[in-house]
Amino acid sequence: MALKLYGIPMSTCTARVLACIYEKNIQFQLVPFNLAVGEHKQPSFVAKNPFGVIPVLEDEDLTLFESRAITAYLLKKYKEQGEDLLRLKEGNLKEEAMVGLWTEVESQQYSPATTPILYEYFFAPRRGKIPDQKVIEDGIVKFQKVLDVYESRLSQSKYLAGDFYSLADLHHLSFTLYLMRSPWVSLISSRPHVKAWWECISSRPASLKVVQAMTPAEK
Amino acid sequence: MALKLYGIPMSTCTARVLACIYEKNIQFQLVPFNLAVGEHKQPSFVAKNPFGVIPVLEDEDLTLFESRAITAYLLKKYKEQGEDLLRLKEGNLKEEAMVGLWTEVESQQYSPATTPILYEYFFAPRRGKIPDQKVIEDGIVKFQKVLDVYESRLSQSKYLAGDFYSLADLHHLSFTLYLMRSPWVSLISSRPHVKAWWECISSRPASLKVVQAMTPAEK
Ligand SMILES: N[C@@H](CCC(=O)N[C@@H](CS)C(=O)NCC(=O)O)C(=O)O
Ligand SMILES: N[C@@H](CCC(=O)N[C@@H](CS)C(=O)NCC(=O)O)C(=O)O
Repeated sequence: MALKLYGIPMSTCTARVLACIYEKNIQFQLVPFNLAVGEHKQPSFVAKNPFGVIPVLEDEDLTLFESRAITAYLLKKYKEQGEDLLRLKEGNLKEEAMVGLWTEVESQQYSPATTPILYEYFFAPRRGKIPDQKVIEDGIVKFQKVLDVYESRLSQSKYLAGDFYSLADLHHLSFTLYLMRSPWVSLISSRPHVKAWWECISSRPASLKVVQAMTPAEK
Repeated sequence: MALKLYGIPMSTCTARVLACIYEKNIQFQLVPFNLAVGEHKQPSFVAKNPFGVIPVLEDEDLTLFESRAITAYLLKKYKEQGEDLLRLKEGNLKEEAMVGLWTEVESQQYSPATTPILYEYFFAPRRGKIPDQKVIEDGIVKFQKVLDVYESRLSQSKYLAGDFYSLADLHHLSFTLYLMRSPWVSLISSRPHVKAWWECISSRPASLKVVQAMTPAEK
């Protein structure tokens, strides 16, 4: 039975899982899902994910949520096919540790800095709210500091965990795709190594499939 | 050469790593560290962790930061000794996935809800600031929702990932220890399954060693 993914491609967290699925050439079924009518708050969905958010993955009797837990599971389950984004096949624990480290940096530093900016700019208006400029400005200050660390790191290695594409890079795709559709493109493009890294990771065939799947974030 | 851990036990992120080290009976050296004089912002430390925060682990030529990346690395490296908190030895991918899922829930839901409360209550006063009651109140509302999910989950299994203690549980120790020294103990103690889980995980020998190592958070 094919995997079932509940979510919509324009959701950053769903897109994160899609990027992984495409890199691994995994057969799956994207279950049509309607956020606008609150399908994620219905009891049948809350039984799958008690936090009532997408994405959710069903693999026979296993139900998973949290996008970053789903990608890690898929990489372990499909270790033998597609890209080895966790460096499991190498058996090189230090490389695996570096993937783990930069995956955590995305989760603890990059994502918390970008989320408020993207939320205010793209999503608040859709909910009839005026974007809070103070939140955006504070977010940008924080994000610049994070990007300075990335610039330095990416001057030492082509990708975050080393000279190989990994899950750590992949986890950045969906948020950064939104950012590149915002007025703050220069945060990325003004930093030569971050820019080169972004061009490299966003032009992978699997990444292009994600871009295609994501409805453009109209503004 | 023994592992070197830079940090102080009363830092929640350092304590998270200590809990793991104690569960695994790993030889290590805690490098004396002085946050008060800003040792974490010195160039020699920033060369180890560009974000200038503790903890940092050095294992010969490998330097790691991000507490949750360090614990995962230690569990893989010392797979054969102490508790198998990632379920690696079982080779049961579904159990491993459940550990991954609830480890993510700590990182994405539990920790973001508790951090602002603990920061305002314990740390703001030390920096000469008055705790922001609105931030505390909003944090509590958010945290209650998270704990309701935990209550329901823990009525189905003894621990978060299943009927076995895992890294997912362990990652909760340090923040919850602080919470239990705050005025909001009843958030935990009013939920019977959460309370039983907390009593169980906090009374493990390794957890008691963490409690002992952490300077009491005086108020
Ligand atoms: N940490 C979760 C976050 C999930 C999340 O926030 N999903 C969003 C879409 S990207 C959602 O379902 N939002 C709907 C809502 O919050 O009502 C993950 O990584 O999966
Ligand atoms: N996500 C990081 C957070 C590290 C962190 O914030 N450490 C705190 C102590 S718990 C710190 O070094 N604070 C000093 C400062 O921010 O100046 C981790 O889990 O290791």
